Order: sequence, then structure tokens, then C-alpha cells
Amino acid sequence: MLYRVYLLIIGFCLAFSSFVSAQTDQDAFYIRKIYDVALQKGKAYDYLYHLSGDIGGRLAGSPQAAAAVEYTKQLMDTLGMDEVRLQECMVPHWERGGKEEVRIVNSSQVGSLDLKAASLGNSIGTGPMGITAEVIEVQQLDQLDSLGAEMIEGKIVFFNRPMDPTQINTFSAYGGAVDQRVFGASRAAKYGSVGVLVRSMTTRKDDVPHTGVMIYEDGVPQVPALAISTNDADLLSRVLKREAVNVYIQNNCRNLAPKKSYNVIGEIRGSEYPDEIILVGGHLDSWDIGGGAHDDGAGCVHALDVIQVFRRLGYQPKRTIRCVMFMNEENGQAGAIAYRDASMKAEEFHLAAIESDRGGFTPRGFTCDAHESVFEEKYRKLTSWLPLLEPYGLRFKKGGSGADISRLKPQKGMLFGFEPDSQRYFDYHHTAIDNIDAVNKRELQLGVAAMTSLVYLLDQYGI
Amino acid sequence: MLYRVYLLIIGFCLAFSSFVSAQTDQDAFYIRKIYDVALQKGKAYDYLYHLSGDIGGRLAGSPQAAAAVEYTKQLMDTLGMDEVRLQECMVPHWERGGKEEVRIVNSSQVGSLDLKAASLGNSIGTGPMGITAEVIEVQQLDQLDSLGAEMIEGKIVFFNRPMDPTQINTFSAYGGAVDQRVFGASRAAKYGSVGVLVRSMTTRKDDVPHTGVMIYEDGVPQVPALAISTNDADLLSRVLKREAVNVYIQNNCRNLAPKKSYNVIGEIRGSEYPDEIILVGGHLDSWDIGGGAHDDGAGCVHALDVIQVFRRLGYQPKRTIRCVMFMNEENGQAGAIAYRDASMKAEEFHLAAIESDRGGFTPRGFTCDAHESVFEEKYRKLTSWLPLLEPYGLRFKKGGSGADISRLKPQKGMLFGFEPDSQRYFDYHHTAIDNIDAVNKRELQLGVAAMTSLVYLLDQYGI
Repeated sequence: MLYRVYLLIIGFCLAFSSFVSAQTDQDAFYIRKIYDVALQKGKAYDYLYHLSGDIGGRLAGSPQAAAAVEYTKQLMDTLGMDEVRLQECMVPHWERGGKEEVRIVNSSQVGSLDLKAASLGNSIGTGPMGITAEVIEVQQLDQLDSLGAEMIEGKIVFFNRPMDPTQINTFSAYGGAVDQRVFGASRAAKYGSVGVLVRSMTTRKDDVPHTGVMIYEDGVPQVPALAISTNDADLLSRVLKREAVNVYIQNNCRNLAPKKSYNVIGEIRGSEYPDEIILVGGHLDSWDIGGGAHDDGAGCVHALDVIQVFRRLGYQPKRTIRCVMFMNEENGQAGAIAYRDASMKAEEFHLAAIESDRGGFTPRGFTCDAHESVFEEKYRKLTSWLPLLEPYGLRFKKGGSGADISRLKPQKGMLFGFEPDSQRYFDYHHTAIDNIDAVNKRELQLGVAAMTSLVYLLDQYGI
Repeated sequence: MLYRVYLLIIGFCLAFSSFVSAQTDQDAFYIRKIYDVALQKGKAYDYLYHLSGDIGGRLAGSPQAAAAVEYTKQLMDTLGMDEVRLQECMVPHWERGGKEEVRIVNSSQVGSLDLKAASLGNSIGTGPMGITAEVIEVQQLDQLDSLGAEMIEGKIVFFNRPMDPTQINTFSAYGGAVDQRVFGASRAAKYGSVGVLVRSMTTRKDDVPHTGVMIYEDGVPQVPALAISTNDADLLSRVLKREAVNVYIQNNCRNLAPKKSYNVIGEIRGSEYPDEIILVGGHLDSWDIGGGAHDDGAGCVHALDVIQVFRRLGYQPKRTIRCVMFMNEENGQAGAIAYRDASMKAEEFHLAAIESDRGGFTPRGFTCDAHESVFEEKYRKLTSWLPLLEPYGLRFKKGGSGADISRLKPQKGMLFGFEPDSQRYFDYHHTAIDNIDAVNKRELQLGVAAMTSLVYLLDQYGI
């Protein structure tokens, strides 16, 4: 009797293991098909060509952002999704206002010299006359407290701490320096500074200024803030080592009344578990001075092409696959907040969400995050998929997802950040050179394949 | 008694493991220092700027190749090595001879149309009058056998099988298509073909022709062979689907008498095991139509900067570190053969050799190879180093090293190929656009750090 039970158990195990391995073979085959289609019939690069090349920079509130909403909505309509809709949100409306100038004046070393500059997002303008003041260089926000009003009042504060080039992941280096850009103006204005210059956020030495968001603190006087290129930051710093110099700054930035804008949302409803949502998305807005190709045109077209690839494969998902173009990630995340609020109100469940917002470079894998009560269990499941993904150079890394989707954490699904190679991202980030010619088609399409493959596994097996 | 033996064993184990982990900590610390120096004080990009930008394409036998020998020798002299020397070798001397033309004539669809073309290395010239003949398209070398002289005689054979874009590693795709370029001319000439056109070796669709070596078979008539860009290959193929067309080809290539050239070799002698050589190298020659920046300027400056970084760190190796610039990898490997012959004659032992010849992109790790009698044992040792290298995105992969060092296999050392990300390599390979502006400084310097770290571990612990 016992013998028969053993036989039964052994038989069951064999059947089960061959079932599992047949599943794995089938999955490996399907993922191979996904890669074949994404690399041969992918459309992400074509989409990006229009979004970044023709429409261009898409700052929230701008006509280009409106055009991007319309374009991606129309595109989703052509992809035959079950539903395509716009989701309203109110976005800040900041305008650069054209020409901006930063000039060293009266230097005995360099005379009068223009620096490559770009106003930071949300900065007020100087007015047409500009501001001329002596410059004081600092490396850390905290340094301001020890310098005090005595040293700072009436001056332009120049934040010059470089991004650490020895960090292997450039996003860590960015995280270690960006406080100067975001908070520098108000911290300096507390001590009477009249304006702020910030070293551009890149490890490169070049002539390209990098803009990006800055935030004024309530109750502190607002002063204009501009980024200067790293070459010019080095130059200004050298000049300051030998003499006190005045700098003239002039820009025409304006904060206008908030405007109505939209997230663009399309979905294919799941055949078995329609209430389990798998989100893929990027943010549709960008900064204004370049084409927003890597940030985050690439993420948008990654997500759109996931849908196109599934369509071309004739794939009918078991779960609902939702493609979301978030509005206004760069300047307050109004779109992400509107999306979260609506989703919570509707008591939706995002089984998973994947955000691509780190550029269109060669895929390395996904970072992942979830509510701590469920993270480890879900992560174990993920690692069981590695044999299917490692042949494509993909792995999972604990920690972090994306700015727009992280607000969905209370729903206790798994949140992923698509992670491409990070080395070139901050060559282009928030600059006038973040254009389609900075994107390699093959690298971009590999990103589509990586994301589609993960969505496929999530859809097949849940998590 | 037994109890005491246990205690002794446990004590020994604890001491040993803390010794091991102290070693590991120290190694981790040193590798971190290597990365810091390579990323902040590395010189590879500056070296490459001169080698690729100022000297330019360095085809074996050319004045530029001679200049590159002189430059890298002088550079090694400044790095304070124990010995710097030139090693003679006789290299083929092929000249492109300036202007080359491929033109569709008499097409009812496109009229008379110039195609972007580059003669293949070693090709004979057509003479000043050129050759005009009907074109026949094939996909595979074997197809020629079934077509036979009846279909081929008097025609130009057009090899048009694309590199497979669905291969994740682009070198595999290259390996699957390059037979057309290397052997196509003689295979076609056997059946009376008068010339050969080959689709360029890249997955991109663009207007850039890719040259590269072709080899004539003994006893078969030699016919001219040229590559055309992938866009033009697609165009020609479309035209041929609707009508027979003639193509005019004209080039002025010449094979001249072999010339004397040199490998450039510098070494720092080991303090403890001077007879155990660790080689780092790349090949100094390149094709002539571009700056040979990724192929293989990058590999040369990787190897040179390994020495510079060690010097800056004040590192005194236990084993001999030898930096080798191989001559003529592209067109027969005369330098590699001369090096191997001299090394065998001197009964040298290369404990390890690392060749960088896959471009200056973000490092992924190293492929490795060794005589089969020792491979598995050595590979196990390598994997024990992974905890030190994985934080930098590096891993080891079985199989393959480099064209120049693979001849050292009988010495039973470990042979490594530096492996960067492969996605963009064939955008530039053997083209007029393989120039310094195609190289990202940070990606290049990360390659230096990766190679230096591996040399450090090999030097510390042997293998």
C-alpha cells in the first residue's frame, strides 16, 4: 500500500515537473517571439521620432504638451485597445520666456564673458533689467548657515558641488547633488541672496546647461535660479579663486495660472482577471529646451510599443494591461496624483506597474518595490523567472520603481522601474541635446522587448 | 582529546575565514581605488583623441600605422615601464587607392544611381575603366553551387543576407553573416563572376558602407569586391525584384609588397614572479576609412591606461604586467603570429592575457578561454572573485578571448576577452564614422577600470 502511495507521489512529481518545464519552454519560446517582433517590427523609434523630433519639448501647460496628449491618444486609438481616455489634471504653467543670460562682468582675468545657462523650472524672472551682483561659491547647502547673512546678503550664490563621477550608477551621483538645484534658491534667499547659479547635473565636462525643477519654500523671498554648464562652472570657480567678480543674470521666466491637462490612458481588458491591472507607462511631459527624447519620450514609446508588440503577436491578456502616459512628472506630478486619486476611489488593484523613466539605453533589468508586508514573497516569485530573463541580460534589483507609479504602493501590487544602462543618461538629461539623434534605435527596441516580456510573465502567472 | 581537536579545527577555521574576509575587504578597497582613479584621472580618452582623432585610420603598412607605433612607444616611455620595445613583423600592404564607385546603370526604376560603397580589404582594383555587368543577388554562399556557371558567369554577384537583428549579442549576428564578405569573392569567381558586392555588416539601416577583410582562395581568379550600405543593398534588392540591372563598379585598390611593421610592447617586471606574465592589449592597426576609434583604438588605450592607473596608484606588481599593441589584426594577424613565435621560442609563460577588441562601451565583464586541460579549474577560481566584481556590473562568460592572444593557448594560461555592451559596436565597425565622437568618455574609462581590476586580482592571487 505504502509502496503504491510512493509510486503515486513519484508519478505526480514527474508529471508536475514535466508540466512546469513544458510551461517554461513555452514561456521561453514566447519571450523569444516577443524579442523577434520588438527588434524587427517594433515601432518605438518611429513613435519617438514624431513625439520628440516633430512635437519637441513638452513642458506641462505648453502647446507641445497638448499636442503630445493628442498624438498619443490618437496612436492608442489605432492600436485597437478596449478603451482609450483622457484623465484630467491641473498642471503648473511655467514659461521660460525666451532669451536668458549669465555673464561674468569686470573680471580682470576673463573680462566680460557669457556663460551657457538655462533657467531652472519654476524660477521667477529677473525682469528686463536683470540683476548684477557679486558671486559667492559654495559646495553644500549647509555651508550657507555658517556663512550667514553677513557673507550672503546681496550676493548671487553659486552652488558648485559636482555629481560624483566615481559612482557606478549615475542616478546615485545625481541623487547626491540635486539638492543644490531643487532647494538652493530658498536656502540662499533666507540669508538675503539675490539670485542663484547651480552647476549643471552631469558628470561630463561640457558646454551644455541642464535645467530641472526647483522649489521655492513658502514664506521665503523668491529669487531667480539658473543652471550653468559644467565647463562654465569650472571656469567661474577658477576666476573666483583669484578675485571677487560680479555676474549679471537676466531671464524672463513667468509662473502663470495652472492649466488643465491630461494623462492619456489606454487599456486592453483581461479575459480572465480583468480587475487585476498591469500598468506600463512613462511620463509624457518633458523640459522645454530639448526634445525630451530620453526623458521621457523613450519611456512613453516603450509603453506604447509594448501594446503594439502584443497586438502584432495576437496576444489576448488574461489580466488588464493598461498603458499610461503621465502628465507633469517633471514639475509636481499632477498627473500621477490625479491617477492615484482616481484609482483609489475606484478601488482598483494594480497587480503590477512598470514605469520607464531612465532613458532608452540597453536594458539591464528592473528595480522593484512593494509594500513591505508583501515584498519578500513577491520578490521570491520574481527570481523564479530569472532563467527566462537572464539570457537577455535582465535581472531584478531591490528598491525603487518610478516617480509616477510609486504612489500606488498602498494597493500592494509589485512596482517596477525599468532599468537601462545608466552611463549616458546624464549626458542628455534636461538639456537642449536630449533629442532623437541621442537615441539608438536598437537599444530603444530592446527596452520594449524587456518590458513586454515582463508584462507577459506577470499576465500569465500573476504575482 | 577529540574535543580539543574540534576546538583547534574551529579556531583554525575562524582564523582562516577572517583572514580570507580581511583579504576580500582589502581587495574590495583596492578595486574601489582603481575605479576612482580610472574615472577621475584616467587618460584613455585623451590617448584615443590623439590616436584616432589626430593620427586617424591606421591600416597596417600605412604611414598612419607607423605613426601609431611611434606614438604608443613614446607614450609607454613616459609611463616609466621597465622595458619598452618594438617587435618586428612583416605585414601585407594593401591600398584602397582613393575614389571608388558603385553605380546602378540603366534601371527603368531609379535611372543611374550611385550607391555608397567601400572596397573590401585585400580586394584587387577594377582598373581605371571599371567593370559593368549584370547583377545577381544571392543570400548564401552555397546558393552559388546550385546556380552554377550558367547563371553566374560574367555577372556581379550581390551577397545580401542581413546580419540577424534578433540576436541579442551583435557579435553572434556578425559571425552569422561575415562569410559572405570574407569568402564571397572567390566562391563567386569559381563560377565566372566578374565582381562582388556585399551588404554591409551591420543591423542598422543606414548609408554607411562597412569595409573589412576578404580573402582570395589560391588558384581561383581574383575579382574586385566592395561593400555597399544597407540602405543601398535594400534598394538594389528592390530594383532586382522587378528588372535585371547592370551595375558599374570602379576602384583603384592595389596589393603591394609586404612591409616591415611592429608590435609595441612595454612591461613592468614583477617583484615576486617575474616569469609569470599578465598581458593586456589591443590591436594598433585599424581599417583606413575612419579613425578606428572603437576598433580598436579603444582596446589600445584601455591597455595603456591600465598601466597609467597602476602607476598613479604606485602599484608594484608581483607578476610581470605586459602591455602589447598588436599590429595587423585586421589583415592577417602578422603581429600576433610574430608575438606568439617569439614567446614560444623564449619559453615564456603567460599566466593570463586580456585582449580588448570589442569597443569602448559600458563593461559587462570578460569572456574566458584556456586549454581544456586547465579551463574548469581556473574558471572555478575566477568565480570566487565575482563578489568583488559584480558590484561593478562585471561577470565571466565561458568561451572566447581575442584574435591576437588566442594563439597563446598552448601556454595553458587563462585568456580573457574584455566584453563591453555589444549593441552599438556594429553601428561603427570598419566605417568612416568610427571616430572619437562615437566614443563616450565615461564608458571608455569604465573599461579601463574593469581591466585594471582583473589584472590586479590576477597579479595578487595568480590563477
